Amino acid sequence: MFAVFEQYIRQQADLTDAEVELLRARSVVRKLRKWQSLLHEGEIWRLNCFIASGCCRLYRFSDDGTDHTLRFAVENWWITDHESYRTATPSVYNIEALAGTTIITWTKEVWEELIEAVPALKTFYEQLQARSYEASQRRIFSLISSPAEAKYREFQQTYPLVFNRVPLHMVASYLGMSRETLSRLRR
Amino acid sequence: MFAVFEQYIRQQADLTDAEVELLRARSVVRKLRKWQSLLHEGEIWRLNCFIASGCCRLYRFSDDGTDHTLRFAVENWWITDHESYRTATPSVYNIEALAGTTIITWTKEVWEELIEAVPALKTFYEQLQARSYEASQRRIFSLISSPAEAKYREFQQTYPLVFNRVPLHMVASYLGMSRETLSRLRR
Repeated sequence: MFAVFEQYIRQQADLTDAEVELLRARSVVRKLRKWQSLLHEGEIWRLNCFIASGCCRLYRFSDDGTDHTLRFAVENWWITDHESYRTATPSVYNIEALAGTTIITWTKEVWEELIEAVPALKTFYEQLQARSYEASQRRIFSLISSPAEAKYREFQQTYPLVFNRVPLHMVASYLGMSRETLSRLRR
Repeated sequence: MFAVFEQYIRQQADLTDAEVELLRARSVVRKLRKWQSLLHEGEIWRLNCFIASGCCRLYRFSDDGTDHTLRFAVENWWITDHESYRTATPSVYNIEALAGTTIITWTKEVWEELIEAVPALKTFYEQLQARSYEASQRRIFSLISSPAEAKYREFQQTYPLVFNRVPLHMVASYLGMSRETLSRLRR
């Protein structure tokens, strides 16, 4: 499964064979069953987690006990709680697998060594974070500006790999609409 | 007006007097009239922009010509188009002053020199970006999870300095609700 990551990272960063081997040697591959949890709120998130196959979501409960899907991630994506990772404080989020999933992980300690040792990896990582932030700005714009139907179409077109693989009520939650609204739009 | 920034940055980063002086020497102070534009969509955003007094907003037009307020910023905040700045591509956003405003700015070229010369400034800047990203995650959660009334209350409590100084229809737009919904909530 490391081959999936190797193909991905070689497209993203100009790494030598020795650097790729270093990344491989320090990685841990894990398999998750469908619905298996990777992070429970209250825990500190200490991983860099690349999805080699399958699908995960990051979600959070509101005070009334409803869960809200903040992010989906399929193969070649990363999933993380940025804040808990950075500040080493308990997470308010949960991460679970929505299908059988293989992840490739590096602990924070290992990752920090790696980005110091491999400048091209550090540059890649900084750009990944910047792009995530920019994507979240676009998502905020979509959430505040788009009618429900446009949000739904945009999601379907932008994330076809996600759309076909996750339960509809999670899509509704991700788009900030009720299941009823989403069902109506689909008809 | 640099004194406002000096007080702010000394709280955020452990800088020597010489480093603060360097920041001052390379800064440009500008005054904006109410409604004066600082960025038009299509332009490339090349500034680091600290607000010493006043209030600005970042907004974007949707296809139907409605403008949507993505961010407000008052004194001791920064305002930026992260993506245009990073990638040197034309912005999709606009920035304007909502009141008489004083800004302290550094061009991208100058700022990059400064963060290389002043390690504590670089650390501060990275943390500022990380916190902005984390705040956007919380905002997404609020947008998808909260009923309109809770969003409105949260905004009022979290940003009292903004709330009392910007037109209500911009608050409605920021919260992703219609003016009518906001008016109803206020009654």
